[in-house]
Amino acid sequence: MVVTPWEVKGKVDYQRLIKEFGTQPLTEDLLKRLERYTGSLHLQLDRQIFFSHRDLDAVLDLYEKGTKFVLYTGRGPSGPVHIGHLVPWIFTLHMQQKFNTRLYFQLTDDEKFLIDDSVDLKTTQHWAYENALDLVALGFKPEDTFIIYDTQDMDLLYDLTLEVAKRITYSTARSTFGFQDSTNIGWVYWPAIQAVPCFIHKKLTGENVPALIPAAIDQDPYWRVTRDIAQKLGYYKPAQIHCRFLPGLGAGGKMSASMPETSIFTKDSPEIVKKKIWNAFTGGKGTAAEQRKTGADPTICSIFQYYFFLFEQDKTKLAERERRCKCGEMLCGECKKDVAEKLGKFLEEHQKRREKAKDTIEQYHIKR
Amino acid sequence: MVVTPWEVKGKVDYQRLIKEFGTQPLTEDLLKRLERYTGSLHLQLDRQIFFSHRDLDAVLDLYEKGTKFVLYTGRGPSGPVHIGHLVPWIFTLHMQQKFNTRLYFQLTDDEKFLIDDSVDLKTTQHWAYENALDLVALGFKPEDTFIIYDTQDMDLLYDLTLEVAKRITYSTARSTFGFQDSTNIGWVYWPAIQAVPCFIHKKLTGENVPALIPAAIDQDPYWRVTRDIAQKLGYYKPAQIHCRFLPGLGAGGKMSASMPETSIFTKDSPEIVKKKIWNAFTGGKGTAAEQRKTGADPTICSIFQYYFFLFEQDKTKLAERERRCKCGEMLCGECKKDVAEKLGKFLEEHQKRREKAKDTIEQYHIKR
Repeated sequence: MVVTPWEVKGKVDYQRLIKEFGTQPLTEDLLKRLERYTGSLHLQLDRQIFFSHRDLDAVLDLYEKGTKFVLYTGRGPSGPVHIGHLVPWIFTLHMQQKFNTRLYFQLTDDEKFLIDDSVDLKTTQHWAYENALDLVALGFKPEDTFIIYDTQDMDLLYDLTLEVAKRITYSTARSTFGFQDSTNIGWVYWPAIQAVPCFIHKKLTGENVPALIPAAIDQDPYWRVTRDIAQKLGYYKPAQIHCRFLPGLGAGGKMSASMPETSIFTKDSPEIVKKKIWNAFTGGKGTAAEQRKTGADPTICSIFQYYFFLFEQDKTKLAERERRCKCGEMLCGECKKDVAEKLGKFLEEHQKRREKAKDTIEQYHIKR
Repeated sequence: MVVTPWEVKGKVDYQRLIKEFGTQPLTEDLLKRLERYTGSLHLQLDRQIFFSHRDLDAVLDLYEKGTKFVLYTGRGPSGPVHIGHLVPWIFTLHMQQKFNTRLYFQLTDDEKFLIDDSVDLKTTQHWAYENALDLVALGFKPEDTFIIYDTQDMDLLYDLTLEVAKRITYSTARSTFGFQDSTNIGWVYWPAIQAVPCFIHKKLTGENVPALIPAAIDQDPYWRVTRDIAQKLGYYKPAQIHCRFLPGLGAGGKMSASMPETSIFTKDSPEIVKKKIWNAFTGGKGTAAEQRKTGADPTICSIFQYYFFLFEQDKTKLAERERRCKCGEMLCGECKKDVAEKLGKFLEEHQKRREKAKDTIEQYHIKR
């Protein structure tokens, strides 16, 4: 297992990550507190897709005393958005709606340029725009959603990046991010830029409130460094809530744009979706006859994960599907056909809203 | 002797610097070529105050074939400007007027913030403005003078800093600038920002022309790195022309704002100037009687340097002054009184023009 901000490989052991990264598990008590504000627990909390945090309790303590928080998440625009990227964004939208709070969303077109020798700035800027369309398509409201495009908005970020950068030594950066002598100096500086949206709200509004970051757990190292310096700069430490990765359609590993045949992209056509789903790895057996007799294994099945992460809201129905799979009552074909249809419908709607987003996207650009 | 972009200590051996830095001496042939375009040789060339270069010959070759160049220099705004800072700016103005070319002038308020733990950004931004007034007071024309304030203009610079930073490894930066594990990551990144004004002209105008940098030789390491990557990015290597430091009023070493009693600041009053000059180190003897008999040594005299660098344009008169000093015909008091008057008059005029610059300074801000 390798989990860094730039690379996730192998079968991810989330309990081990909690230990290794030094984060806190989302406890029953915390989930109950969240439930109090959100009416019912979101599927992604109830199923422990979000499973770990830093300082969520402190953020809720402040909230109960009248200090709001802002949400902050983002995307490294290295290519098209796949459905795995949408998972934490869907949860972020839920949090924004329930807590009626502002979201800062950073598109790191500078980072993706710096870390990949083969890519030019035009390309990452292009993907930043394309990826923003996917965010908007999910239903975020422009008045509360502030998209930051790093290379367009550096005038706004720069003084804060300097304040952050001055307080991070090369030695700290190297040990946190694994920098080497051959790392370019832009990459070395970049952690300062990812820290800034944690603090930008005060600059824009004068309000000093904490940022809560919903993100996949591989991004945690950035916030560790940011947390170390936040208070020196007069800000709250950014809090985090960490999610798992939606697995890819192959055997093990997260969905990754670098393996397009195992990823469902938001712009995929129904035909391509069907084909990819049909070729997906499941927990099924060699023959239908065998599977009817001994059942299949949903815990290793990439298709079952779609019901778990996204398409089966109803716990009882999910359990029933699991039971039917395990005892051989339902074969993989049925499950695949069903997911392909659900995904097709979801993407058809998403693609329509994504097209419309082209007219409104400018309203989401961070307002000065 | 220590000469780095951040520190100059001891008696500077300029011939040794040419060797150590690997630059070229300004030859008779080059001076003659310059003279052809400028009518007569500027005092600072004739007296070898500018004494070394990189690629000045290449810039003149291009010029003769019809490709112009732009000038680029700058200032780290860590405090008030002293008269030693004005020396290369006066030469830069001469070059701008004779070659009718554009000047980019970078005020590195970000650098000065990053390299000094005790200074805040407001302070370096304040000094950037104050220092710009001194530049404008020298008589630069706004239509051809583009001042860059790093923290204000990062929106314009940022994409180019990324292109540069991506091509400089930490290892190169460390060996060039002596970075250590305790260096902050802002400082590590910063050389990319100092490189960008070499290339900005193309972004603003579409014209690809070389930049010629008149600057004190301690800044050379920055341009070495910039020269290494310029052609990969499709630009000319920046050319340089290097000057000596105006010595301070103490015994040896450059004029330095950190030793205010040995520096003449542009805002000093005539009384303060008189006092500082009166206390200055000269090549004089213990008593007037002894000096009348054995003469003094102008080569180690900080006062004589003022005639040499600035106030005696006429070679014959300079030689006559040297002769009278050496043979004891003229004592230090006379020389000091004369320099204090000349400096007083120079600063009075400068301060008037500096006051007026407050009305026009905005016209010099880099135009998009």
